[in-house]
Amino acid sequence: MDIYEALYTTRAMRRVKPDPVPADVQHKIVDAAIRAPTGGNTQGWRFLLVDDPAVIGQIAPIYRECIDFLWEHIYNERIAAAEADPESEASKQMMVMQKSVQYAVDHFAEYPLLLFAFDQADTTGGSIFPAVWSAMLAARAEGVGSSLTSVLMIKGEEVPDLLGVPADEGWRMACCVPMGYPKGKWGVAQRAPVHTVSFRNHWGQSVAFESDQPLWP
Amino acid sequence: MDIYEALYTTRAMRRVKPDPVPADVQHKIVDAAIRAPTGGNTQGWRFLLVDDPAVIGQIAPIYRECIDFLWEHIYNERIAAAEADPESEASKQMMVMQKSVQYAVDHFAEYPLLLFAFDQADTTGGSIFPAVWSAMLAARAEGVGSSLTSVLMIKGEEVPDLLGVPADEGWRMACCVPMGYPKGKWGVAQRAPVHTVSFRNHWGQSVAFESDQPLWP
Repeated sequence: MDIYEALYTTRAMRRVKPDPVPADVQHKIVDAAIRAPTGGNTQGWRFLLVDDPAVIGQIAPIYRECIDFLWEHIYNERIAAAEADPESEASKQMMVMQKSVQYAVDHFAEYPLLLFAFDQADTTGGSIFPAVWSAMLAARAEGVGSSLTSVLMIKGEEVPDLLGVPADEGWRMACCVPMGYPKGKWGVAQRAPVHTVSFRNHWGQSVAFESDQPLWP
Repeated sequence: MDIYEALYTTRAMRRVKPDPVPADVQHKIVDAAIRAPTGGNTQGWRFLLVDDPAVIGQIAPIYRECIDFLWEHIYNERIAAAEADPESEASKQMMVMQKSVQYAVDHFAEYPLLLFAFDQADTTGGSIFPAVWSAMLAARAEGVGSSLTSVLMIKGEEVPDLLGVPADEGWRMACCVPMGYPKGKWGVAQRAPVHTVSFRNHWGQSVAFESDQPLWP
């Protein structure tokens, strides 16, 4: 697969089939991930693949609690704003996202594979999220959909304890990436155009290029 | 370019030519970056391309101070260990990395392009580093080398102030990515093998696949 196709069409894919992701595909995904950079090339990372339905079934209710908390305490204003003005573009996007996440909540136990990433004493995330994103791009190349969530952190050590993570050695759960073969189609996600979020040489100064539509395909 | 070639060969490329990176190539790089995911699809990011030699020249001495601090106060033990046992694999890798970074220090003012990324109230980095890594992968596809550093944070608001970043609006500098056309060759970076950093279903449990060499090419 062309690199640009992967970069433009790897969108959050939460609606997936329960079909297993074969071991050789998992191997390709994680082997690609570890080529990503880390500060000082320390490679202070661990990856945990969970495909045991019993373990995924234990995480499912924790994920539900975290998302419930998210709706009630973190996204409550955005949800209220969306409900007050349902025709605005922002509201529509919010409701699409909320519906997609709620689908993940209701079907979490059916995910065939979860990829957890851990880092150590990395406060910026710059030494783990490139690897996680590489894993998601490699998954895309293999036809496997994924989505990235850090929401399980809301419940603190509950999931790390369940997975046996040695917190006393400084290992921190960076995120969870549910994976599986998509039910729907791949596509380019909508974004605020690049010139509205980019500057040149000084904050606020025009970046000197413009495009309302994605440059690919 | 094939996605796997990009994922495996986008290594830190600090030795680059002073030749400018054309505007249409810069456009492709940032337009690819904004397809990456963000928590709740908030897209709370800004990208700042710096190609004015005067601005890059002002940042160069700050970068030098930060790296000096890094060697003296953060990597001092690793450097001492490498000097004490120069034949070990870890020591060799450390010295290669140090030499490469020192090259960047001594030639910082010659970089033709810096890409800065900013996020807002994102404590995990999970909503900015996928985009940064996408930018670096798209750059790779265009033949442009890059390296990721968060080291300028050591000098706090010095660089953000110079760039006019409105810290009072909550914008935080996530990283700086110097870019340019490579002097050297692309290649697959060495990593600890995937089965030594991966587990299955529970921390410490074998991931059930193994490969000492990269799966690509």
